[in-house]
Amino acid sequence: MKMNAYVAGVGMTSFGRMMDRGMKSTGGEAIEAAIADAGLEKADIQAAWMSNAAAGVLTGQECIRGQVVLRGVGMGELPVVNVENACASASTAFNQACAMVTAGVYDVVLACGVEKMYFADRAKVFGAFMGAVDVDQLKEILAGLQASAASSGATEASKSAGQNRSMFMDIYAAAARGHMARYGTTVEQFAMVSAKNSHHGSLNPRAQFREAMTIEQVLASPMIAEPLTRPMCSPIGDGAAAVVIVSERKSRELGLTAPVRVRSSVLRSGWDHPSGSDGLSEVCSREAFEEAGLGPSDLSLVELHDASAPAEIIGYESIGLCPKGEGGGLVASGATRLGGRIPVSTSGGLLRKGHPIGATGLAQVVEITEQIQGRAGARQVAGARIGLCHNGGGNIGTDAAAQCVTILAAG
Amino acid sequence: MKMNAYVAGVGMTSFGRMMDRGMKSTGGEAIEAAIADAGLEKADIQAAWMSNAAAGVLTGQECIRGQVVLRGVGMGELPVVNVENACASASTAFNQACAMVTAGVYDVVLACGVEKMYFADRAKVFGAFMGAVDVDQLKEILAGLQASAASSGATEASKSAGQNRSMFMDIYAAAARGHMARYGTTVEQFAMVSAKNSHHGSLNPRAQFREAMTIEQVLASPMIAEPLTRPMCSPIGDGAAAVVIVSERKSRELGLTAPVRVRSSVLRSGWDHPSGSDGLSEVCSREAFEEAGLGPSDLSLVELHDASAPAEIIGYESIGLCPKGEGGGLVASGATRLGGRIPVSTSGGLLRKGHPIGATGLAQVVEITEQIQGRAGARQVAGARIGLCHNGGGNIGTDAAAQCVTILAAG
Repeated sequence: MKMNAYVAGVGMTSFGRMMDRGMKSTGGEAIEAAIADAGLEKADIQAAWMSNAAAGVLTGQECIRGQVVLRGVGMGELPVVNVENACASASTAFNQACAMVTAGVYDVVLACGVEKMYFADRAKVFGAFMGAVDVDQLKEILAGLQASAASSGATEASKSAGQNRSMFMDIYAAAARGHMARYGTTVEQFAMVSAKNSHHGSLNPRAQFREAMTIEQVLASPMIAEPLTRPMCSPIGDGAAAVVIVSERKSRELGLTAPVRVRSSVLRSGWDHPSGSDGLSEVCSREAFEEAGLGPSDLSLVELHDASAPAEIIGYESIGLCPKGEGGGLVASGATRLGGRIPVSTSGGLLRKGHPIGATGLAQVVEITEQIQGRAGARQVAGARIGLCHNGGGNIGTDAAAQCVTILAAG
Repeated sequence: MKMNAYVAGVGMTSFGRMMDRGMKSTGGEAIEAAIADAGLEKADIQAAWMSNAAAGVLTGQECIRGQVVLRGVGMGELPVVNVENACASASTAFNQACAMVTAGVYDVVLACGVEKMYFADRAKVFGAFMGAVDVDQLKEILAGLQASAASSGATEASKSAGQNRSMFMDIYAAAARGHMARYGTTVEQFAMVSAKNSHHGSLNPRAQFREAMTIEQVLASPMIAEPLTRPMCSPIGDGAAAVVIVSERKSRELGLTAPVRVRSSVLRSGWDHPSGSDGLSEVCSREAFEEAGLGPSDLSLVELHDASAPAEIIGYESIGLCPKGEGGGLVASGATRLGGRIPVSTSGGLLRKGHPIGATGLAQVVEITEQIQGRAGARQVAGARIGLCHNGGGNIGTDAAAQCVTILAAG
């Protein structure tokens, strides 16, 4: 939908492996940072949308995750809506918060996403991803992925979908093989995505991985699900991100010096459509551009849902950064690298900044906001004015279960 | 908040024990019934808010519960927000849907709540309730409840909080003992609530329990958590409820013959406040009346969150149906029985209609809507024009974690 809301403040923790911190700790840090960044007080917040995907399965904390985090920083009483949409949970929280502000329901609201995924029981952690598909069809989905891997001549390890890895890496591996077969995309091009994002991540103090990798290093890394090596797969992670959103009226009252305006945010769910036809990501992107009155060529930068390297290449195409089938060529051209025509995932993306599921969509907003405000440090995109966040989650039928595309602009 | 939205259609399944039906089956039935009741087509729905509380813990289906249910009835593509707020999840979905329609974001939306709680592993089911408190404090909360039961001279069985029952029944038992000590409320008065609601439930074809019980039968039933006998505790249950909400403009276009208008809906979260001081339920009720421009004496009927019999008596007071401490006298007077001054929980309430957690708040809206429209059959409140839904959930600090109070009126 068309939006008219302003990002007044952003906050996030570093992403990574934090065995000693739970969601109250990281969520509290992000919330307090965002409110301070907005120059506001906790009491100014009128409502909160809180996102988390895995605490229920991993810690038993269902139902009132937001209240638990907010009480930890002394913020009770306000309306709290706990939202979920798998890996798109945080952009859903942001979408809802922005819609309420745009519509005049509230003047000052908070969207916060938090995730804690590092636990000793790794099998349980990987099992949590299975809640993001239709669990009644889990056996068939896993069998289909295994059959796909087997028919492609994948290595033995690649055949056990969902074992020792998120089953989504098997879904992405199948998509990668499909893209290679249909368009001639190469494994080297997937490796270019990971190498590029590792360069970006090396410039981001909050990234989970700071090490820059060459294409050769990416290709030589352990195989996770053929053809994806480890750096082509986003890691599990702990962390939180929060954004304070205000109305136009309130933004004037606050006298924001570098206002970032939410121009559009489109949330939709997946459906069963013929393979190769426009799907969820295409529809959301097209609508987000229409409602913002902008097009792909207007973008200064993109934070893309690069949960895997092929997802970034496919995402280029569905956003419209290049024609269908030419995503591999786009990354090879250098256009999506810092300094290129349209830098993608300057934060390091999900691959390198990290992917604490319920925080990811808001971390994208943090990155685009800081870029537009010219405070992205070593990874600053010169003259950044318009950015797009692309956040998808789960799987249903032939598509992602949820997708949210958001366009932010200076002004 | 002040609302201006219309209930265009309602649908719900019978509540009860349905070992052969999952949430796709019950959710699908409720959704199709609500859309048909509105005289609309599935394609007319612009967005959906879906609530569920326990599927993650009980079936592993996290993250995309709404998409899974909606796909089952051929409804993809639309924006879906999965919301949670423990036992107040469904009223949260309704609140969000109404706010979006009131604000002009959408014209036609769906709120649906669904829960599946009957599984063979009963310990796992009761364990799911523990996700509705701060799980980091679970041990202290359980120890506190056990100490409270022990100091009151409760039976042995009552001392093991959360064993063989929802831990919320221990929380309610402690509240019941506190109300008895402070105000002289009696166990017989709690039994009167259950007997009254069993009468109401006996008139509701969709109720989980249709048997009418006497006060004596309630008192003679097995003890669950002193002083609460089984009929003083809401059961677990399976079922779904759905409501189609439309804008004023759309309500005129549809030519609704018996329009039910949402006048206000206030959602808030609990906070730490001194015992005995006004808390979440009081604040939400007061605001809901203010924003609707109405008071307790304007109400024709109430659907109250009677998750336990004492909860109904305490609820009378926090809504303002009677002064603090006089709730026991109110039920004893017969005022809250069908035919009385202000009938409460004419559906049978959570105690008898049943309490499939994520569906409850919307089932309340279904009941009030049908009463205002004069189609409540044998339990019809003559001349019903204004009704209040009171739905609370979870526990945090000294209060519920979330509460939503909604006022609906003819017109």
